[in-house]
Amino acid sequence: MKKVAVILSGSGVFDGTELHEAVLTLLAIEQAGASYQCFAPNKPQLHVINHLTGEVAENETRNVLVESARIARGDIKPVTECDSADFDYLILPGGFGAAKNLCTFAVEGENSQPDEEVLAVCKAFAKAKKPAAYACISPALAVSVYDKGVRLTIGNDEDTATAINAMGASHVNCNVDEVVVDNDAKLVTTPAYMLAQNISQAHASISKMVETVLSMK
Amino acid sequence: MKKVAVILSGSGVFDGTELHEAVLTLLAIEQAGASYQCFAPNKPQLHVINHLTGEVAENETRNVLVESARIARGDIKPVTECDSADFDYLILPGGFGAAKNLCTFAVEGENSQPDEEVLAVCKAFAKAKKPAAYACISPALAVSVYDKGVRLTIGNDEDTATAINAMGASHVNCNVDEVVVDNDAKLVTTPAYMLAQNISQAHASISKMVETVLSMK
Repeated sequence: MKKVAVILSGSGVFDGTELHEAVLTLLAIEQAGASYQCFAPNKPQLHVINHLTGEVAENETRNVLVESARIARGDIKPVTECDSADFDYLILPGGFGAAKNLCTFAVEGENSQPDEEVLAVCKAFAKAKKPAAYACISPALAVSVYDKGVRLTIGNDEDTATAINAMGASHVNCNVDEVVVDNDAKLVTTPAYMLAQNISQAHASISKMVETVLSMK
Repeated sequence: MKKVAVILSGSGVFDGTELHEAVLTLLAIEQAGASYQCFAPNKPQLHVINHLTGEVAENETRNVLVESARIARGDIKPVTECDSADFDYLILPGGFGAAKNLCTFAVEGENSQPDEEVLAVCKAFAKAKKPAAYACISPALAVSVYDKGVRLTIGNDEDTATAINAMGASHVNCNVDEVVVDNDAKLVTTPAYMLAQNISQAHASISKMVETVLSMK
């Protein structure tokens, strides 16, 4: 059975992993006959956002690993325990958490710095030529993982694409139900909620991404 | 287009709505060609559970509506604003939140008391003979909504079934990929993660429930 490592970044679109993308990723993995193990960095979130008001909850702190455990129903490990030798594939759903907790793209744009622990794991998969998939805004982390010129997508937002290109990517515009594949890097990306207007579109995006990456060797 | 009201109870299996069940409910509603609006009670959660350790976070409080907003990507309203006249169907996913925040079944068993605001909404749908679906442990609330003898399921856990029967239900054992229908009450129930061993089984359970209730008039 194909084994997939999934890296989460919290639990909720505005400060963590986008929940629809995460759940639909886990479903698509199982439906493809593969298994998954979730991981997340054990550190404080950059922000806690009140998802009802959209405002920062100034006095609140939450831990990325502890909140990500909500998506994994408790079955999750610190990202430092993710050994690429144990898995065939790596998948990162999106949500602002990918750009706040896995790297600093949400606040620093093209000067984004990746989380060192997460970067080490992602680079290990890349170095071992194991296929990986990054959804939504998480390609803002992928650009730090792969060689200059890596082909990827975050949809069609011009400012975001420009910032990612400035970091070394070769951005390709992409519809919500399609994927961009870099065959040399063995990298699959898809816009998901960077473009999706509803959960059906997010499902189409995530399903295509998971099916595509799991068909790669 | 058929319109569905969805009542959430937080965000995370151990103190709120089970996330897989919630997301798969929203997907199934859209895939059936219907639309949804999420609601939740605006009050403190009974517990905050650290989903990594399973322990109660003693010094932490969270609000049911604010946390439920994570599932709804911010598009959610207080349950008091749910007018049954505006919707054709009512659906409640499960998770411990249904038995901790929508009623007190998780701590008081057969002496469970429903949240008054939630009960009023659920009873309005029942009185208007609008079909409703309750997944996982949320039938522990349904028994307070419908007449004595209502047929429903929480899977096959004997202690839970006994407690719900003591409250007035007529519990029917049910496999994870099946539903129990009470045609008089227009109530559909399914075990979901009361029995599901993985997300694929939860998906089968939730999809069957949503398709069944949305086929009722």
